[in-house]
Amino acid sequence: MDQPSLGAYLESERQEVEAALRRALDEMPFLPDWLAGAVRQGVLSAGKRLRPVLCMAAYRALGGRRPEIVDLACALELIHAYSLMHDDLPCMDDAPLRRGLPTPHMVHGESAALIGGAMLIPGAALHAWEVSSRMDLPDPVRRELVRTLCRAAGGGGMVGGQALDLLGEGQALGREALDALHRRKTGALLSGALRMGGLAAEGTEAELQAIERYGAAIGLAFQIADDVLDATADAAALGKEPSDALLDKSTYVSLLGVEAARGEAGALVDEALTALREGGIQAPALEALARYIVERDR
Amino acid sequence: MDQPSLGAYLESERQEVEAALRRALDEMPFLPDWLAGAVRQGVLSAGKRLRPVLCMAAYRALGGRRPEIVDLACALELIHAYSLMHDDLPCMDDAPLRRGLPTPHMVHGESAALIGGAMLIPGAALHAWEVSSRMDLPDPVRRELVRTLCRAAGGGGMVGGQALDLLGEGQALGREALDALHRRKTGALLSGALRMGGLAAEGTEAELQAIERYGAAIGLAFQIADDVLDATADAAALGKEPSDALLDKSTYVSLLGVEAARGEAGALVDEALTALREGGIQAPALEALARYIVERDR
Repeated sequence: MDQPSLGAYLESERQEVEAALRRALDEMPFLPDWLAGAVRQGVLSAGKRLRPVLCMAAYRALGGRRPEIVDLACALELIHAYSLMHDDLPCMDDAPLRRGLPTPHMVHGESAALIGGAMLIPGAALHAWEVSSRMDLPDPVRRELVRTLCRAAGGGGMVGGQALDLLGEGQALGREALDALHRRKTGALLSGALRMGGLAAEGTEAELQAIERYGAAIGLAFQIADDVLDATADAAALGKEPSDALLDKSTYVSLLGVEAARGEAGALVDEALTALREGGIQAPALEALARYIVERDR
Repeated sequence: MDQPSLGAYLESERQEVEAALRRALDEMPFLPDWLAGAVRQGVLSAGKRLRPVLCMAAYRALGGRRPEIVDLACALELIHAYSLMHDDLPCMDDAPLRRGLPTPHMVHGESAALIGGAMLIPGAALHAWEVSSRMDLPDPVRRELVRTLCRAAGGGGMVGGQALDLLGEGQALGREALDALHRRKTGALLSGALRMGGLAAEGTEAELQAIERYGAAIGLAFQIADDVLDATADAAALGKEPSDALLDKSTYVSLLGVEAARGEAGALVDEALTALREGGIQAPALEALARYIVERDR
């Protein structure tokens, strides 16, 4: 896939995901406006929608053809949105801006961002249930989808990574500790996205393993690329403050320098492509997404 | 069940639940000490363990006999613990004490209470999955158990009630608004506890309906009794500040006065007992628990 086609593909997928996110929010229980506002802002404010896009790409790569995959994939974005709402709170990263706009707690108050974020966790699990039923997936697959989502979000996944991240502030982390942190904080949900796509397509065990190996590699590559962007771009281009340096967090750039970090991200992309090839998975979209993850400019 | 037997029953159930909570925590993914400390405090600090006890009583009332029910019931207490950890945070009720001891964020910091609480949500869903598998329950029942838990916790249940509660601060709510608030904030998880017990026992639809009607009635009775306690007991007896009055929240006592509120709680207990009788459910433990809920002194 060349650069212009990739751009068009990402934009079309993003629009499909945003329509599906609106449907998911409309199906949620009635909430007071004050809380609904925080939830809608947290979920609908512009983003790359990378997790759903990866989930859909994995699904199609393994032969899935149902259009409802975009709705299933939104469960991942609901979890991602909750994590951003909580991460931005004053007791966490204390971020007033994200993607150039005031964060949900700045607009709707801390309590709305707190409980609105928490609400998205059971909401995402219920959403995955309902959609997987509409997709006529067998019970064991549906169960494994929800389990994958919960594991990726929980203490062994994203939350465990947030904890390691907070703990690491003000410390110089070594490579191993930094990898362990990001494999959980960002990597678990990205890998989970790929696994959910593969599960929904009812892929073989070997295919699921290949796709998760791809996911683990691009998950880490994504974080390294983020650190490089933080170190080289300014706030206007990123739409947020380059917060990690301000918070005195270890980054791949502080550990390796910009050039070596770029090299490392490239090697991880190669590893991701190798995983696909060795798993016999032909998927131009997944290949293009792996390259996009390290070459993006925001 | 007479008073001394009820006391012995509650104490024995409570001990069984606490042992099961420790097992549930031990099975959770490895966490940094700092976060694990907040989670353990949130889950293990003394409490009545009413939700698991109700779940177990419903299970046994409908003929369930497996000992693992206590482990399944703990999923409810994990959700309850998360809600207390978040409710006590500065941006919510800002409570320094609960049950006479400093709250998790006072000991471990706000970020630990925030993410440790959030972690318990997917943790509880995963726990319910694993235990219901060990109980050899059929897939549709297991699915309905996790769905019930997520619905009780989410925006249509507990979180929706928290939102209404925060919104109602400083306003004089009428009876209907107060009932709607508490049917979600406290009632949804108490009702969910009874439904989960009934589901795990593979009760009939009529039995499940009766037990949920019981649950809705005692859920509201529980809140009215809480308001009466807050209005009549002092902080030492309650182990916390009588916070609702301080926060200028509407209560059943502010709405009805102490005597009428007591009468209302009594009528709800009658309604709960009628639901059991009409559903053909003979359950001395559920009858005793309904009375205990309005007669307890803390």
